[in-house]
Amino acid sequence: MSDALRVALLGCGVVGTQVVRLLDEQADDLAARVGAPLELAGIAVRRPGKHPDVPAELVTDDAAALVARDDIDLVVEVIGGIEPVRTLLLTALSSGKSVVSANKALLAEDGATLHDAASKAGVDLYYEAAVAGAIPLLRPLRESLAGDRITRVIGIVNGTTNFILSRMDATGAGFDEALAEATALGYAEADPTADVDAFDAAAKAAILAGLAFHTRVTLGDVYREGIGEVTAADMASARAMNCTIKLLAIAERVVASDGTESVAVRVHPAMIPRTHPLASVGDAFNAVFVEAEAAGSLMFYGRGAGGAPTASAVLGDLVAVARNRVNGSRGAGESAYAELPVQQIGEVSTRYHLALDVADQPGVLAAVAGIFAEHGVSIQTVRQEGRGDAATLVLVTHSAPDAALAATVQELSDSSFLRRAASVMRVEGMSAD
Amino acid sequence: MSDALRVALLGCGVVGTQVVRLLDEQADDLAARVGAPLELAGIAVRRPGKHPDVPAELVTDDAAALVARDDIDLVVEVIGGIEPVRTLLLTALSSGKSVVSANKALLAEDGATLHDAASKAGVDLYYEAAVAGAIPLLRPLRESLAGDRITRVIGIVNGTTNFILSRMDATGAGFDEALAEATALGYAEADPTADVDAFDAAAKAAILAGLAFHTRVTLGDVYREGIGEVTAADMASARAMNCTIKLLAIAERVVASDGTESVAVRVHPAMIPRTHPLASVGDAFNAVFVEAEAAGSLMFYGRGAGGAPTASAVLGDLVAVARNRVNGSRGAGESAYAELPVQQIGEVSTRYHLALDVADQPGVLAAVAGIFAEHGVSIQTVRQEGRGDAATLVLVTHSAPDAALAATVQELSDSSFLRRAASVMRVEGMSAD
Repeated sequence: MSDALRVALLGCGVVGTQVVRLLDEQADDLAARVGAPLELAGIAVRRPGKHPDVPAELVTDDAAALVARDDIDLVVEVIGGIEPVRTLLLTALSSGKSVVSANKALLAEDGATLHDAASKAGVDLYYEAAVAGAIPLLRPLRESLAGDRITRVIGIVNGTTNFILSRMDATGAGFDEALAEATALGYAEADPTADVDAFDAAAKAAILAGLAFHTRVTLGDVYREGIGEVTAADMASARAMNCTIKLLAIAERVVASDGTESVAVRVHPAMIPRTHPLASVGDAFNAVFVEAEAAGSLMFYGRGAGGAPTASAVLGDLVAVARNRVNGSRGAGESAYAELPVQQIGEVSTRYHLALDVADQPGVLAAVAGIFAEHGVSIQTVRQEGRGDAATLVLVTHSAPDAALAATVQELSDSSFLRRAASVMRVEGMSAD
Repeated sequence: MSDALRVALLGCGVVGTQVVRLLDEQADDLAARVGAPLELAGIAVRRPGKHPDVPAELVTDDAAALVARDDIDLVVEVIGGIEPVRTLLLTALSSGKSVVSANKALLAEDGATLHDAASKAGVDLYYEAAVAGAIPLLRPLRESLAGDRITRVIGIVNGTTNFILSRMDATGAGFDEALAEATALGYAEADPTADVDAFDAAAKAAILAGLAFHTRVTLGDVYREGIGEVTAADMASARAMNCTIKLLAIAERVVASDGTESVAVRVHPAMIPRTHPLASVGDAFNAVFVEAEAAGSLMFYGRGAGGAPTASAVLGDLVAVARNRVNGSRGAGESAYAELPVQQIGEVSTRYHLALDVADQPGVLAAVAGIFAEHGVSIQTVRQEGRGDAATLVLVTHSAPDAALAATVQELSDSSFLRRAASVMRVEGMSAD
């Protein structure tokens, strides 16, 4: 058994508290797995008086001093946000400490700077906990599938929005009502913007895309639509199609007709058939499909958030980086050699479902069909439901560039015969495309 | 970029052919991910004339000479079986070559010898493809969950038996008929013993248990029952309970009342509720749940067999061991420090479902209940279905030691009022235990 490795913990909230607990409770097992004891040497928090459950002598409010200490080998970061964390982690990495982080925002915003610092110092930067909580997902992408060619990653990676959409589906509630319920139950934060507006899911999508396609992808590369505009009418339309609505993170390898490749990354609500495995992922669970040429379709499912599940992922990484340190080695670093260009959403092929309230008069269907045709969008199915002097047209398109679909919707909105677009929603996971 | 690493391939059947194809087609990507080109330097096969699709100059029937060659860095084994493979791999490891193997039988039978040789030589022994084909499962157990405490692994890890049981469920066919269909469609081999008698699943269960509980577990430690005794009547009983029957591999950490721990590993058909996620795993797919104290319940799902999916797992390992070689490092070796004892099946707690045809006379239920009570087995539910002069009692027990349940069934069989035990089957995944 080697000498103890000394760990600094940055942040001691819901996740950090569990990290402290598990480091203590599982100390013997962790030591046996690492080949050296892991010793908690310091805990940086904002308000030292607020953490009665952790050893007082370890607590400090001076994170900068902690990460610079010579006796620290490994740094675990569970604070979140960009600054001051980026500065702290750069200090840690550049002084030769390996880092385990759960910080999706920072990794998605400026992972490159951290990876470069880790590479330069010859240390590890692991962040399994940043995406999908306890679910082993980044390591499988980075290592298990390193001999395969990933074509698509699609999944549910935000529990808060999944809870809200599940409630809207189950009860017929509108968005505001379901959000209020999520807040009351602790599923949504007081300021739910990061979840509801899909910044959280977009950051995770950027990280997944980067690993899957060996390309640097940042938050700014991700097309992002939150769930704030999803209405009870949208959900009712989905139900009528035997579908539900989920917030999906989708990263795709796109191969043009001339063989050139690019990457498309997007997060938006979408209708999916109730028979699709993602449709039954409830409440705060996450599930991600990875499609690869040789492996076929793989699914990973589990708890996407929460103190203990996230701490499990943090500790798995901590064991790995500690073991590397004991062995004098280093894990696989960033792999971004492919440098694929990232597509804008307009170029991405998607499908739409539309429920259009139109005047019930001869020729309307022909006019609507004409507008789709004009934009090169092919209609897969159309159903007309008469309602007195008005009618509802329910359409599902074939795949077409998103920009063409958006232009089609715009022109429909401007037409004289459209009374209201009751629901416009992208569609995923339907067959017969 | 480092010098090329030279790879020897042992075996060139369904999986090996795909390994050769992917090494060629993905050569540039693999080189970028490894940091060195991977060069196929030799392919050992039994009948060199039978492989027109691979470069003839690489083919040899002298596997022993190939693994001993000084110019080989890495050995990939997809032959299967115990000998001569064990001898070949020991030669490879002891001469400093890292090994990637898909050989569940050998790993389960005598993994310790191989691990010891790898450790002594300071090289890698990876075998993700040995369990659940393309599904990243061993690496998550070994690395992602290294900071957690796994309590249970339960899953479907054999596609052939899953196909047969799915057909029996869907069509009401008996075992022989469903096996014939599986054979005709290529899902079952000409000699289906390894699959049907659950040797294959038991080997995988041993490997999973070893990784999950940091303990050496061999095939001989696994309680094994195949599906050859599952009848159409069993499946009908399952359907009547809103259940289906699956061949399950189950590895559990058992904590006795005095706190001492042991491991129980078993493979047998079991009734599970149709609402359980494993119930909907169809045909040749595999799915495995991993339950850990902090992470909660995780599910992994994908193709469990087939040339390309298995080759994906092989190549993922090959990239990892090659990258380690380029970096002069070594991955995590065997972790068996816990050395937990392995329980015999009789001590393991299970639940039973029984459908008993009994004489329809007063006092039979009391007599049956008395026999259960005598063996300390508590009944959760009992339903009596009258049928003329006979009746069927359908019982589900609470958890009890398997030996007590077996003794109960034996005494019932010996009783004067039992006409026939129409179905006796273990039960998993039911709540209210």
